[in-house]
Amino acid sequence: MYPRSLEKLIESFRKLPGVGEKTAERYALLICDSDIEDVQEFAQALMDVKEKLTHCHVCGNLCEGDECDICRDRDRNHRQIFVVQSSKDIIAMERAGEYRGVYHVLNGLISSSKGILPEDLNIESLVERAKDAEEVILATSATLDGETTSLYLSRLLAQNYPELLITRIAHGIPSGGLLDYADEITLMHALTDRRKMGG
Amino acid sequence: MYPRSLEKLIESFRKLPGVGEKTAERYALLICDSDIEDVQEFAQALMDVKEKLTHCHVCGNLCEGDECDICRDRDRNHRQIFVVQSSKDIIAMERAGEYRGVYHVLNGLISSSKGILPEDLNIESLVERAKDAEEVILATSATLDGETTSLYLSRLLAQNYPELLITRIAHGIPSGGLLDYADEITLMHALTDRRKMGG
Repeated sequence: MYPRSLEKLIESFRKLPGVGEKTAERYALLICDSDIEDVQEFAQALMDVKEKLTHCHVCGNLCEGDECDICRDRDRNHRQIFVVQSSKDIIAMERAGEYRGVYHVLNGLISSSKGILPEDLNIESLVERAKDAEEVILATSATLDGETTSLYLSRLLAQNYPELLITRIAHGIPSGGLLDYADEITLMHALTDRRKMGG
Repeated sequence: MYPRSLEKLIESFRKLPGVGEKTAERYALLICDSDIEDVQEFAQALMDVKEKLTHCHVCGNLCEGDECDICRDRDRNHRQIFVVQSSKDIIAMERAGEYRGVYHVLNGLISSSKGILPEDLNIESLVERAKDAEEVILATSATLDGETTSLYLSRLLAQNYPELLITRIAHGIPSGGLLDYADEITLMHALTDRRKMGG
């Protein structure tokens, strides 16, 4: 119905999460009315993200270059590792501003329903890093897959390093809730009230 | 907080209508995980829309090239002009499949609150086209600005062409509703039950 180029743009918008036909149309028609500079910037931003963005080779966080800002920061405690499922959880924690250790991004959760196995996640390098760590804080979401993943990791780490302190953030995150949607107070509670978890 | 390229993409997504911080983040993170081909296609689609898409010089509809498919279609009744505020209203009417005349897109509505004046809209060429028309059907939305615009147009057209039949789609579109959200039956009723409006 629409001209071909507009149809193609609507199709691209429809691939975004939670975007249906009407919303995609609204987005695409706004683009039609936008300044050419804004649209060029948008297109450039899309390409830049694919071209410049990689995963930090230490922690798996999204970054430009080889190592992320947090891993490069020598003022942080590199012997305390906060394990999350996605980069956006790091942003949420950093906004709370309480935590001074480093992170490790799994890039997913072990999930029997989605067929995601431990070897699909960024776990091997976590075991490697944990060798020099004092504490590993498991901060996957309070969902079934999140709990499963934490349990798996706590056992795996305890097997390898009996001396390592393994904790799990706990009190504060509501059951079934997603980490990156929690408010800052809740996150702070979750950090303060973490409990020992050893294998 | 995020790497610069990701921040820029989030910023671009935030300019879309109804998209807040969290939604923009979700969109941008999905792009990070998308295939490079999909993202290239998306960026290309954005640029194509700005480069290829213009307004039909006859009716003001979005099209590629000089004249839109509907204006080029000699099987349609070019003496019956259906006046809408935006191109997406044409799509809604064409989906209903009942109308066989042509269209005229105002690209907006007269609005005192937004400071949009008649001279900002595609009205001059409508008056020009109406010279050869038998009927002009006013189909702006059933909102304050929509009614104002229809009233203005009906008076303007009646002044210029006392013989012209000027109608307004009416029965069926709920008050305050937007044309492109109406279902096909409602649109069909609105077309069938249009009432004479002359100046």
